[in-house]
Amino acid sequence: MVEKLTAAERDRLLPTLDGWEADAERDGIRKSYRFADFTQAFGFMARVALLAEKADHHPEWFNVYNRVDILLTTHDANGLSMRDIDLAKAIDS
Amino acid sequence: MVEKLTAAERDRLLPTLDGWEADAERDGIRKSYRFADFTQAFGFMARVALLAEKADHHPEWFNVYNRVDILLTTHDANGLSMRDIDLAKAIDS
Repeated sequence: MVEKLTAAERDRLLPTLDGWEADAERDGIRKSYRFADFTQAFGFMARVALLAEKADHHPEWFNVYNRVDILLTTHDANGLSMRDIDLAKAIDS
Repeated sequence: MVEKLTAAERDRLLPTLDGWEADAERDGIRKSYRFADFTQAFGFMARVALLAEKADHHPEWFNVYNRVDILLTTHDANGLSMRDIDLAKAIDS
């Protein structure tokens, strides 16, 4: 069972992320990435896909050309959980 | 210079595609795919990415878990062009 983060946990954890913003409507976190071109963008997506599959936690994401928009939320928790924080950190590292 | 398809061309070409629907708002075509799981969905995306890069024509697409939604439109033509029809056929073949 995955638990949603408490308000106190969010206050502590969100500032430790690099450029991820809270999405109140979906109760998740979002970040938009820009790359030089599609090849770079899709190369990034392939690396994220491997991380996501390994973590068994998958993003909602959109790509057009050099842009990749990622939303992380935990369907099982019906909102933001530690799994989203961990995947965000893995993506950025 | 890429030209938008005429109404007559659309009437002729759209029925030759498999399950792609016209999107009037974006002047493009859309299709949603479902797979067994994320690995299958992303494997499909990787194949489409190679086709797209080869054609130098890129999709707008969204993925969550086993679902992939694709919109094809031609920014240079400001609407649906033959390049979208060709890429749709390549994706489905």
